[in-house]
Amino acid sequence: ARHKIQQELQVASMEIDGRKRVLIEGVTPEIDGGRFAAKRVAGDLVVVEADIFADGHDLISAVVRYRRPGQSEWREQRMKALVNDRWRAEFSLEALGVHHFTIDAWIDHFLTWHRDLKKRVDAEQDIAVELLVGRAMIDAASSRAKGRDKKRLRSYLDELDGEGSADERAEALFDEDLVTLMMRNAERAFPTSLGRDLPIEVDRRRAGFSSWYELFPRSTGKLGQHGTFATASDELPRIAAMGFDVVYLPPIHPIGTTYRKGVDNATNAAAEDVGSPWAIGSDQGGHRAIHPQLGSLDDFRSFRARAEALGIEVALDIAFQASPDHPAVAEHPEWFQKRPDGTIRYAENPPKKYQDIYPFHFETDAWRALWNELRDIFLFWAGEGVRIFRVDNPHTKPLPFWEWVIGEVKRVHPDAIFLAEAFTRPKIMYYLAKAGFSQSYTYFAWRNSKEELTEYFTELTAGPTRDFFRPNAWPNTPDILTDFLQYGGRSAFIMRLILAATLSANYGIYGPAFERFVAEGKEAGSEEYGHSEKYEIKQWGRSDEATAELIGLLNRVRRDNRALQQNATLVFHGTSNEQVICYSKSEGTNIILVVVNLDPQTTQSAWIDLDLEALQVDAERPFQVHDLLGGARHTWHGARSYVQLNPHVIPAHIFRIRRRVRSERDFEYYL
Amino acid sequence: ARHKIQQELQVASMEIDGRKRVLIEGVTPEIDGGRFAAKRVAGDLVVVEADIFADGHDLISAVVRYRRPGQSEWREQRMKALVNDRWRAEFSLEALGVHHFTIDAWIDHFLTWHRDLKKRVDAEQDIAVELLVGRAMIDAASSRAKGRDKKRLRSYLDELDGEGSADERAEALFDEDLVTLMMRNAERAFPTSLGRDLPIEVDRRRAGFSSWYELFPRSTGKLGQHGTFATASDELPRIAAMGFDVVYLPPIHPIGTTYRKGVDNATNAAAEDVGSPWAIGSDQGGHRAIHPQLGSLDDFRSFRARAEALGIEVALDIAFQASPDHPAVAEHPEWFQKRPDGTIRYAENPPKKYQDIYPFHFETDAWRALWNELRDIFLFWAGEGVRIFRVDNPHTKPLPFWEWVIGEVKRVHPDAIFLAEAFTRPKIMYYLAKAGFSQSYTYFAWRNSKEELTEYFTELTAGPTRDFFRPNAWPNTPDILTDFLQYGGRSAFIMRLILAATLSANYGIYGPAFERFVAEGKEAGSEEYGHSEKYEIKQWGRSDEATAELIGLLNRVRRDNRALQQNATLVFHGTSNEQVICYSKSEGTNIILVVVNLDPQTTQSAWIDLDLEALQVDAERPFQVHDLLGGARHTWHGARSYVQLNPHVIPAHIFRIRRRVRSERDFEYYL
Repeated sequence: ARHKIQQELQVASMEIDGRKRVLIEGVTPEIDGGRFAAKRVAGDLVVVEADIFADGHDLISAVVRYRRPGQSEWREQRMKALVNDRWRAEFSLEALGVHHFTIDAWIDHFLTWHRDLKKRVDAEQDIAVELLVGRAMIDAASSRAKGRDKKRLRSYLDELDGEGSADERAEALFDEDLVTLMMRNAERAFPTSLGRDLPIEVDRRRAGFSSWYELFPRSTGKLGQHGTFATASDELPRIAAMGFDVVYLPPIHPIGTTYRKGVDNATNAAAEDVGSPWAIGSDQGGHRAIHPQLGSLDDFRSFRARAEALGIEVALDIAFQASPDHPAVAEHPEWFQKRPDGTIRYAENPPKKYQDIYPFHFETDAWRALWNELRDIFLFWAGEGVRIFRVDNPHTKPLPFWEWVIGEVKRVHPDAIFLAEAFTRPKIMYYLAKAGFSQSYTYFAWRNSKEELTEYFTELTAGPTRDFFRPNAWPNTPDILTDFLQYGGRSAFIMRLILAATLSANYGIYGPAFERFVAEGKEAGSEEYGHSEKYEIKQWGRSDEATAELIGLLNRVRRDNRALQQNATLVFHGTSNEQVICYSKSEGTNIILVVVNLDPQTTQSAWIDLDLEALQVDAERPFQVHDLLGGARHTWHGARSYVQLNPHVIPAHIFRIRRRVRSERDFEYYL
Repeated sequence: ARHKIQQELQVASMEIDGRKRVLIEGVTPEIDGGRFAAKRVAGDLVVVEADIFADGHDLISAVVRYRRPGQSEWREQRMKALVNDRWRAEFSLEALGVHHFTIDAWIDHFLTWHRDLKKRVDAEQDIAVELLVGRAMIDAASSRAKGRDKKRLRSYLDELDGEGSADERAEALFDEDLVTLMMRNAERAFPTSLGRDLPIEVDRRRAGFSSWYELFPRSTGKLGQHGTFATASDELPRIAAMGFDVVYLPPIHPIGTTYRKGVDNATNAAAEDVGSPWAIGSDQGGHRAIHPQLGSLDDFRSFRARAEALGIEVALDIAFQASPDHPAVAEHPEWFQKRPDGTIRYAENPPKKYQDIYPFHFETDAWRALWNELRDIFLFWAGEGVRIFRVDNPHTKPLPFWEWVIGEVKRVHPDAIFLAEAFTRPKIMYYLAKAGFSQSYTYFAWRNSKEELTEYFTELTAGPTRDFFRPNAWPNTPDILTDFLQYGGRSAFIMRLILAATLSANYGIYGPAFERFVAEGKEAGSEEYGHSEKYEIKQWGRSDEATAELIGLLNRVRRDNRALQQNATLVFHGTSNEQVICYSKSEGTNIILVVVNLDPQTTQSAWIDLDLEALQVDAERPFQVHDLLGGARHTWHGARSYVQLNPHVIPAHIFRIRRRVRSERDFEYYL
């Protein structure tokens, strides 16, 4: 605070250096003053910007200094002035882990003098004294310089000391070469430092671009038998063929029997009911154990090996809660909350009771041991080669715990990816992302209209949010079957799939139910599935080949087009019809334009108003739109075009923008 | 940074308390993480807001804690939850100086239990065990409580321990009284502190609401004679009658003769030329001395005394620069920059030379002594009772100097007010305000169209800027005679005056030239006055009584309507004509609506679309608009009204909104 600064100045009799005249403010990326890391993926260029200014008219020089994870050496990148005192530099991010950067800036007396000398010469002023000023600076730099630089700086001094008029001798000083030499060797007088090192956390590319397929292994058995890792692994080739690269399994641990839930979440289970995988723990073990009916740890290893051979990673569900039968209940009663009658407090949201679940008591005096145990569960599965964790309900565990535990796991496994399954209030969802979650579930499932989608994805991708929150968009999950899917029919599913896969670089589906367009809710007004797979084994039967092919095509389009592998360049374009949404993404010259009919029942048409600059298209020249779903190519010209989409054929265009270029042999074609 | 936090956690083996589950973010007012103070004036209520949340569904309690300047005691104000995890509290600011506030928040176990008990009772659940949980909390609070609170809490325990069913005994617990008692006495378990004390600087009211009149005392003499403080003081009654409360004088110090500028800034002055008051210092003295032709220090004291008797404060111009004749040049050559030929570097903006001015060299090794000297100049004049300083070109002196010197002066004189005369790039202007300037000149003079004015004043009053930047709007200054005034005629002057006085709570005019509608520029394309008063004595002659009366009326309207004494409630309303602007300000029930014709030549009419909520007007009932300039009263109804303004009569309405109220005797009238 200013008051504090003043006090310091007085107490220390001005122990600051008052000659440091440059100010640095408004740095990006910077989250909460450096309290949290900005997120990037390996291979990204990070663009650092800041407001840098000083009193008067002197020229400033500025550098970004940055340090890779685990390195003590700082590298340096010169910043360039944009407009309005904004400066920018970029540097590349290769290593995983937390990078740091800071900024130094100073009045550049040489550049200032050099600029003014030019003006004086142009105004035919006497520059004799000014040449002495510059000479002293070049001389000082040459003393500082080494090797070739020293020699070259000396040669400029020789020219200055040579024959001829002041104007003639000044001539050589306007070489760009001298400026470069001086930038490298001149004194950085009274430099201002930003005063803090700002973190950027670099994850591997899959943290930013992934396609998830969720399935319950127990429903992969034949004829209603309990499935196993072995039967589940037979699904993997089909999932790989559809282009998914993450297969996500609900908890694979032993399931409790006390207060086990029956079919459709019934309070009392029948003897044959298999229970919810989220009621974790039985006399067979807890969070480190595998449900015996699924197989052994070795079977899990085989499943994972087969997946990886197909280019698919296995993501496990980490749900920190215990069934009353979980071994920890007996071994560590201090991790649970006891009521005055000696019973353990089960989960409640009064008046609702969840007697099959004991939450961990995070306000226990033994919280340190509890935190360590939960971290060790992550480390155990990481030791089994699992690097993607879908975390169940993180918003019901203390948020500082997540910051700690994710940091602990990533310290050992910087390639770990954490997906936050938090459907809660926005500030908590954002905080979880800041605290370290690599990806986050979103409100996508409930954003249906053009206005809702535009507003929400603008908030996620254009504001400060985009530096820490990576959306993972799901049309459905085992918990969420929206009205829109219940009543929209097949075309609603396809449309929501295309929106998820193109609006968000990370997306996923609860696969078996999605592929079969399962649309039966539990009851009117409910968003839960009827006969939910959470409480019973499903016999899915054959799925539709055409749908699998469309999904495969969509994932291939995502893989072939880098524009769809990030969200930062998302731009919405105007349309004349509220039922038609249009947006684009670009990465370099790869530009994708998506048009979606949001009405699952009726053919809709619209005029679209393209932001040609976002599409890197010349308003004066025709360009080609190549539909990557249907294959058709159209030639468009200018900002306004007409589209019509029949949802029963396909509710969207995914256009690749191809610009007309001229070949070396003077032949024009679309690239 | 997160990385650092993690490290700390590891190094300290989790020496944080992991049970602190509440997070506090997004605090307002907070400038750059508390680096600078938010500005308020004495008598303000400050509204503190923050995002406060935790995991799960538990209820939170939060308090703002605040401390008045120089006090060690912290007071406390309970925060209230708004929507979306936003919390708010207010407290009043009386004392001048820097206040601090911070926030504490915690999971309120009692309130959570209390809410849930109600739900359990409603659901007819067995609450016997729950009553034991609550009993323990009330018991603990009663041990902590004193006096009457202890007794009353005990009585609740007695009821709980009494006869009857659990439901009957629970009855008493739903008293609001118990909740209040528990809020006061219950444990604040594992509270989260914001972790920093945020500063709010409280200035006296004139820092936020002032009307300035600038004049050159030397032009107040008779028949072209050099004016004095005595002749200038004869202008004061007229200035007071016009309602100004600050009279601002250009520098009153001895004027240098070396390289003195002549009429119209001519390089060579004639013998009789009086020079620019900004070429400060001669053998008669420097920044502590008075130009002998104006009088003595005693004469200045008499001038100030007469002004104050009329309710006018004197503002001095502090211009930190020296003429070559300034005593400091000889006494402290180390405060100036020497060129290699031994001469002192004069001010330049190559190729322009200002040989009559030596800038102080702030990169001198002796910067500490220089800073102290400049501070002591402020303190000298403060010792003479001056408390308002208009600082000349602060953006050409190091910005950290201003933060220090303003802090130093305000430590002794917390009622000091500093106006920054910085017409430079926006980020520097904003930084000067953050560094401590109480008021700032603005771009107002160059914002003419409806769009420009709306955008600029929205930026100043609706964004984060409003917490630290107080605009002081001037239609003209001795340096600025805009094209708009040069070619707009009398009505342009009146229109710009009304805009300045109603858009900005602080405003001022370069009076003598303004009152006489002086519109002659130095040359075509120049914004400088021809025959500028900066370089010569003007004989102003009689001014127009009608104009003085209008100015007086305008200042009376400002004084009578608190809505115009602040900017935070400024709202722009829609109009159907780009030449008509409409805006309102409100303070409590005092609501002012201004409509201005921006075309100085032609009568303009428009439909205006009122934001009735901002005007606190019921759409269903008529309301009265009372024109405080013309006196007319009209009855309007609903959001849409028609206005027509002839700039040659008066280019604006300043309406007071009067709502229809019903008297006790059932008689309706407009209040």
